[in-house]
Amino acid sequence: MALASRVRFLARALLRPWTLLRGTTFGRTEPAAGGGGDGARRFGSQRVLVEPDAAAGVAVMKFRNPPVNSLSLELLTELVISLEKLENDKTFRGVILTSDCPRVFSAGLDLTEMCGRSPAHYAEYWKAVQELWLRMYLSNLVLIAAINGACPAGGCIIALTCDYRILADNPKYHIGLNETLLGIVAPFWFKDTYVNTIGHHASEQALQLGTLFPPAEALQVGLVDQVVPEDQVLSTALSAMARWLAIPDHARQLTKNMMRKATADRLLRQRDADIQNFVSFICRDSIQKSLQMYLEKLRQRKG
Amino acid sequence: MALASRVRFLARALLRPWTLLRGTTFGRTEPAAGGGGDGARRFGSQRVLVEPDAAAGVAVMKFRNPPVNSLSLELLTELVISLEKLENDKTFRGVILTSDCPRVFSAGLDLTEMCGRSPAHYAEYWKAVQELWLRMYLSNLVLIAAINGACPAGGCIIALTCDYRILADNPKYHIGLNETLLGIVAPFWFKDTYVNTIGHHASEQALQLGTLFPPAEALQVGLVDQVVPEDQVLSTALSAMARWLAIPDHARQLTKNMMRKATADRLLRQRDADIQNFVSFICRDSIQKSLQMYLEKLRQRKG
Amino acid sequence: MALASRVRFLARALLRPWTLLRGTTFGRTEPAAGGGGDGARRFGSQRVLVEPDAAAGVAVMKFRNPPVNSLSLELLTELVISLEKLENDKTFRGVILTSDCPRVFSAGLDLTEMCGRSPAHYAEYWKAVQELWLRMYLSNLVLIAAINGACPAGGCIIALTCDYRILADNPKYHIGLNETLLGIVAPFWFKDTYVNTIGHHASEQALQLGTLFPPAEALQVGLVDQVVPEDQVLSTALSAMARWLAIPDHARQLTKNMMRKATADRLLRQRDADIQNFVSFICRDSIQKSLQMYLEKLRQRKG
Repeated sequence: MALASRVRFLARALLRPWTLLRGTTFGRTEPAAGGGGDGARRFGSQRVLVEPDAAAGVAVMKFRNPPVNSLSLELLTELVISLEKLENDKTFRGVILTSDCPRVFSAGLDLTEMCGRSPAHYAEYWKAVQELWLRMYLSNLVLIAAINGACPAGGCIIALTCDYRILADNPKYHIGLNETLLGIVAPFWFKDTYVNTIGHHASEQALQLGTLFPPAEALQVGLVDQVVPEDQVLSTALSAMARWLAIPDHARQLTKNMMRKATADRLLRQRDADIQNFVSFICRDSIQKSLQMYLEKLRQRKG
Repeated sequence: MALASRVRFLARALLRPWTLLRGTTFGRTEPAAGGGGDGARRFGSQRVLVEPDAAAGVAVMKFRNPPVNSLSLELLTELVISLEKLENDKTFRGVILTSDCPRVFSAGLDLTEMCGRSPAHYAEYWKAVQELWLRMYLSNLVLIAAINGACPAGGCIIALTCDYRILADNPKYHIGLNETLLGIVAPFWFKDTYVNTIGHHASEQALQLGTLFPPAEALQVGLVDQVVPEDQVLSTALSAMARWLAIPDHARQLTKNMMRKATADRLLRQRDADIQNFVSFICRDSIQKSLQMYLEKLRQRKG
Repeated sequence: MALASRVRFLARALLRPWTLLRGTTFGRTEPAAGGGGDGARRFGSQRVLVEPDAAAGVAVMKFRNPPVNSLSLELLTELVISLEKLENDKTFRGVILTSDCPRVFSAGLDLTEMCGRSPAHYAEYWKAVQELWLRMYLSNLVLIAAINGACPAGGCIIALTCDYRILADNPKYHIGLNETLLGIVAPFWFKDTYVNTIGHHASEQALQLGTLFPPAEALQVGLVDQVVPEDQVLSTALSAMARWLAIPDHARQLTKNMMRKATADRLLRQRDADIQNFVSFICRDSIQKSLQMYLEKLRQRKG
């Protein structure tokens, strides 16, 4: 099948940002070693490590779903719960999101959740993707993405829901919504987030071409706000956070809501239709066949 | 009448991009010599020359309505038919649009179709303009504009409906929506296309001022995606086409439609009202008088 | 109260653009000396000086509400009346707006109108702010802002309703919507004006952070169209005006209306709700307390 073989071929390009990296693979998530870790100073769940700095009102939230932080149903759920906790804890005013896995911020949606499962599972999974987007995009907290690795597809969307983005200056750390390369289509709310960030024309081309931007180009097009040496990503995020926290919370939150509400409302008005749309698309034989061949290929490479 | 004389004066500036060029004139379209030409390797109509490369899945479509490819009713009709043919022929995935006339991509709408005719004729003409815009803006094909000449008004709109634009680096090849210089107003869907390409603020100023951008400025404002030496326009378009055709068609088409549907729907919802609006505007005595004096001037210069 | 003290602290930063300037203060408006001035060649009201050039069809309108042109109810009213007069006088096709007060274009809304008054007064004041914005944003005249001083908050909005903006190249002349620094929120139509000028992403960050842009950054982000030496602001505005007046009025006005109508309609559809919203926000104890402490501080500094 022509589409399938083209997808297989493109999948290699799609994966380049992280498959070229030593020892990394792509597939089902594995349980993280450790979990919460060193007692009082850290909390969080198995796949989300939270390092609070209560005095500063800031928490650093690290994704730990090796090897590539793919957004499994478990990771999505734990992210939502961790954010909810911080949102409800008056101690915290800002969160820095970063990766605990080397060289990858997040590889995006977990294809194993979208392949060979039941329609009910696809619906549950997509609802969780929506839930994370809604919670992050409308968060009252200041969210800053400290992007210390490759950041395609769903990883990019997580970064774009933040208020500010800092990308490590490593030519392998690409960022962008590259869904078309896999033969699939970003949902309209990914598209809306893209347009809100880089404008209509750049989105139209980048979404169609599935462009993955290296750091300098990402900065130029406006996908990220700063590019800094890799070892300064976190410290730069902390400096940026201080600037954001200098603003009275209430006025900032009302302003953020004013900017984002219309976009979020578009999804809220049609969540169920969007889920149905995703399920019927992903259930197509041609799409399932493509994804299966693609995953098979990855497993062989891994094995 | 003050407006009329101002329009006459400005008309010269409006025409500058191509009237300054040796031997060119502006007016009624003339039948192209030849028509289809060299048998099996080319097809098309009298005013639209199509050079197919079936192996690559790409066709080059050349406008041949000398002297300045003004968009007469005949040319509009033939363009729509040629595009429809290519769209329905599974052999083709992409089309490169360019001019067969020296130094002009297209001078835009044909003023002789908008002057001294019946309201019914104006309505028929405007419907054809809408039809071409809709067909191009929503085309499933990859459309790339190889802009090898001046590109004002309707010529600019044809370019803007494409997915990618390459402009020859010639200081005389200006591009832009310069309707106000003639005392007329771009329709809202021209405006929407402009805003989608260069944003609200740049559109607001450029549309009011009727700005015609030379190549470097066109690139900077985002009206075109590349500026290359004149003899490399077509080869650059072919290279760009290869990048676009590397993307699975189905995913790319769904993505393009997602980006453009809302804008196209705005026109589709009010096509008839838009036609009535055009007809009543163009039928005004003041507008007709201005256009007549303007055309008379052109005929004298020609004769 | 934490918010109040933070607001007090930030207020100093907010005021920096003009409090750092020699001898200037911020507070209640004082009646301008002179009023209309030198007879036949100037007209206007007490706080708005109009210098007409009937031959050119251009008037220069100077704000004269010392020390900082804060937008008191009187100034708002006089601005609306002056604009209405020029709009109805066929002699005039363009207006240049500038400041008669040294080093400040306008400090924005007058906080004394928003503090310690009755709900009815707040409603009347807010209606006047809406009225000025509507009249300027939809003006048929060409409006050019010759920004010869600091231009925060409401001052920035006046500039943004113009068709073209020239800012004096003085590092102390900042421009931007910095409402959040005071713990208050820009209304949605200020936000819409911002987004139309600098796009969604830049607006989202600048509005949340209350960013005041120095000239070079204001030019880069697109808040102003030109930055020129301070003594060339007015002459540059006159040159720009000549370019705008070269366009037939009728076509330019229809085009401007096409670009701006949707944004203006959003406010027109909900003027009363917007007033209620403002009144209930500004009447909150916490907001009143913050504003009172802030004004008290300013009076002490002044005294």
